[in-house]
Amino acid sequence: MITTHASGALKKIIPLFDRVLVERFAPALKTKGGLHIPEKALGKVLNATVVAVGKGIRQKDGTYVSVSVQPGDKVLLPEYGGTKVELEEKEYFIFKEADILAKLEH
Amino acid sequence: MITTHASGALKKIIPLFDRVLVERFAPALKTKGGLHIPEKALGKVLNATVVAVGKGIRQKDGTYVSVSVQPGDKVLLPEYGGTKVELEEKEYFIFKEADILAKLEH
Amino acid sequence: MITTHASGALKKIIPLFDRVLVERFAPALKTKGGLHIPEKALGKVLNATVVAVGKGIRQKDGTYVSVSVQPGDKVLLPEYGGTKVELEEKEYFIFKEADILAKLEH
Amino acid sequence: MITTHASGALKKIIPLFDRVLVERFAPALKTKGGLHIPEKALGKVLNATVVAVGKGIRQKDGTYVSVSVQPGDKVLLPEYGGTKVELEEKEYFIFKEADILAKLEH
Amino acid sequence: MITTHASGALKKIIPLFDRVLVERFAPALKTKGGLHIPEKALGKVLNATVVAVGKGIRQKDGTYVSVSVQPGDKVLLPEYGGTKVELEEKEYFIFKEADILAKLEH
Amino acid sequence: MITTHASGALKKIIPLFDRVLVERFAPALKTKGGLHIPEKALGKVLNATVVAVGKGIRQKDGTYVSVSVQPGDKVLLPEYGGTKVELEEKEYFIFKEADILAKLEH
Amino acid sequence: MITTHASGALKKIIPLFDRVLVERFAPALKTKGGLHIPEKALGKVLNATVVAVGKGIRQKDGTYVSVSVQPGDKVLLPEYGGTKVELEEKEYFIFKEADILAKLEH
Repeated sequence: MITTHASGALKKIIPLFDRVLVERFAPALKTKGGLHIPEKALGKVLNATVVAVGKGIRQKDGTYVSVSVQPGDKVLLPEYGGTKVELEEKEYFIFKEADILAKLEH
Repeated sequence: MITTHASGALKKIIPLFDRVLVERFAPALKTKGGLHIPEKALGKVLNATVVAVGKGIRQKDGTYVSVSVQPGDKVLLPEYGGTKVELEEKEYFIFKEADILAKLEH
Repeated sequence: MITTHASGALKKIIPLFDRVLVERFAPALKTKGGLHIPEKALGKVLNATVVAVGKGIRQKDGTYVSVSVQPGDKVLLPEYGGTKVELEEKEYFIFKEADILAKLEH
Repeated sequence: MITTHASGALKKIIPLFDRVLVERFAPALKTKGGLHIPEKALGKVLNATVVAVGKGIRQKDGTYVSVSVQPGDKVLLPEYGGTKVELEEKEYFIFKEADILAKLEH
Repeated sequence: MITTHASGALKKIIPLFDRVLVERFAPALKTKGGLHIPEKALGKVLNATVVAVGKGIRQKDGTYVSVSVQPGDKVLLPEYGGTKVELEEKEYFIFKEADILAKLEH
Repeated sequence: MITTHASGALKKIIPLFDRVLVERFAPALKTKGGLHIPEKALGKVLNATVVAVGKGIRQKDGTYVSVSVQPGDKVLLPEYGGTKVELEEKEYFIFKEADILAKLEH
Repeated sequence: MITTHASGALKKIIPLFDRVLVERFAPALKTKGGLHIPEKALGKVLNATVVAVGKGIRQKDGTYVSVSVQPGDKVLLPEYGGTKVELEEKEYFIFKEADILAKLEH
């Protein structure tokens, strides 16, 4: 879950079902020659950090199948398909779990 | 459920199945510098309060899987996809539960 | 079921399966200031009275899951999606139950 | 089933599965003032008599769920969606049962 | 199955699954006045004879649900949807069983 | 499976799931008068020989339902829908089994 | 999984569900006459090496059906349908397993 830091308007965004809330990050990648690759050279994916996740896909018996990412995970997302959410000057995106292409690990 | 306040025409709107009736609200967000963000800067979501909910998704055995929001919940909805309903000078929207992006909590 | 009143041509329209036959009504809403809202200001829904309903959705075992509205119910329907039926100078619409947005109660 | 009356070319058309063969009729409706409503004023439905029906929807175990109309039934059909069949100077239409909007009863 | 008659190139076409191989015929229909109806007046169906049928729809357990027509059956097919196959100067069409509108019987 | 004959680059193409690898052939059909029918007169199908087949459709329990054609089978395929694969100067096509219209037998 | 070699930014891309991460290769094919076929003559497939695979398709009971390729496998992919991912100057693609046309073996 995300808690915004502005006093008096503290809020959490809790995604529903199998949705995840992510925040984009600019990957600090370097080329072999040490040059920084500008973001637009990074191709058709969105590098993002998972901020909050929903309960998962609701089954017919009322239970949920949990999503397979957690807050803090670094993920790759397609350039299109999410919904932009702005909250206190920061921009977030909500995607369905099934749209997450991959996790990034160190 | 919503009960309108005009005498003589009091009405409740009871959404069917997994639909929810919501009323938009203008989020009173402030920037760190104290400036108010105009609504159109808020991006592609609709901030809304749930006013009434349907019984849920009807199963083949006649039972219902309840919706996961309740009247009073603050939710984020996509800009498109709902149906506008006007009742006694107020504007409401009806969405399917599955279209709700997230709940907002304090 | 609807029985039309012209002698000699009395007919009942019995919707099939999960269809409902509705008749539009002009909601006699008043604004707080007492002004009548013209119909076109009412937005993108159709205010209608259920006139007849089908048996419901047929299951694989031959039984039916009844529809959740009854003749006499006031309902909200989307502006598009139904089929217009004219019978003895009156105009009706046939919708699938799943298209009904909400019931209106007093 | 329909048997055409021309000698030497007698044929029956037996619809397959959940299809029905119908023959359009011009509803002899009268307005309250006694005027005949021309057919094009009747809106977007097709008044038809069921002439023959298929065995129904085939289940995985090889059995069939019978269709819910019978030869002789008067039905309302959408203006589009059927296939026109001409046989011995008469025009018929084949529709799927699920496209039948309603039965008409006296 | 169809066996073509040209010596040295005898071939059978065995449709796969729920497909049927048909050969069109020109229905020798007569009007009541004895006039022959030209083919293009016959509307939007294809009069055809079933030449060969596939094994049917394959079930998950590996068995097949047989198709409901047999070689020799006269059928009505929609004007569009099949695939034209030419073999030894004759033109055939392959349709899925579910596209067959009706059987014609004498 | 197909093994190409160029030394040093021998390769097998193993289709996945219910895909089949086929190689087109020009059917040496003769008209009754002995004339060869040019290929473009053969209509909208592709005459092909199955070269390799996949394991079949994977079931939920991890087993496979085998495809119903084998390497060496002559098949009819629709003109469109496959993917062209070139390997060592020869052109192959990959289709899904469900796209195969018919088998050809002698 | 793929581990990039730039120190300080070592990362693994772990595809989610039934996705696979592949790296394109230029197939060193020779014609019989010894000429190299330029890549654009290779038709509408993508020759690629599987670099990492997801856990597979998640079942309702929470288990996974493993994908049928492994890192190191040579595969044929359709020209379109994948998502391009760039990581440390190298270009990768993410496809769903079901899009893989075939495996290539030696």
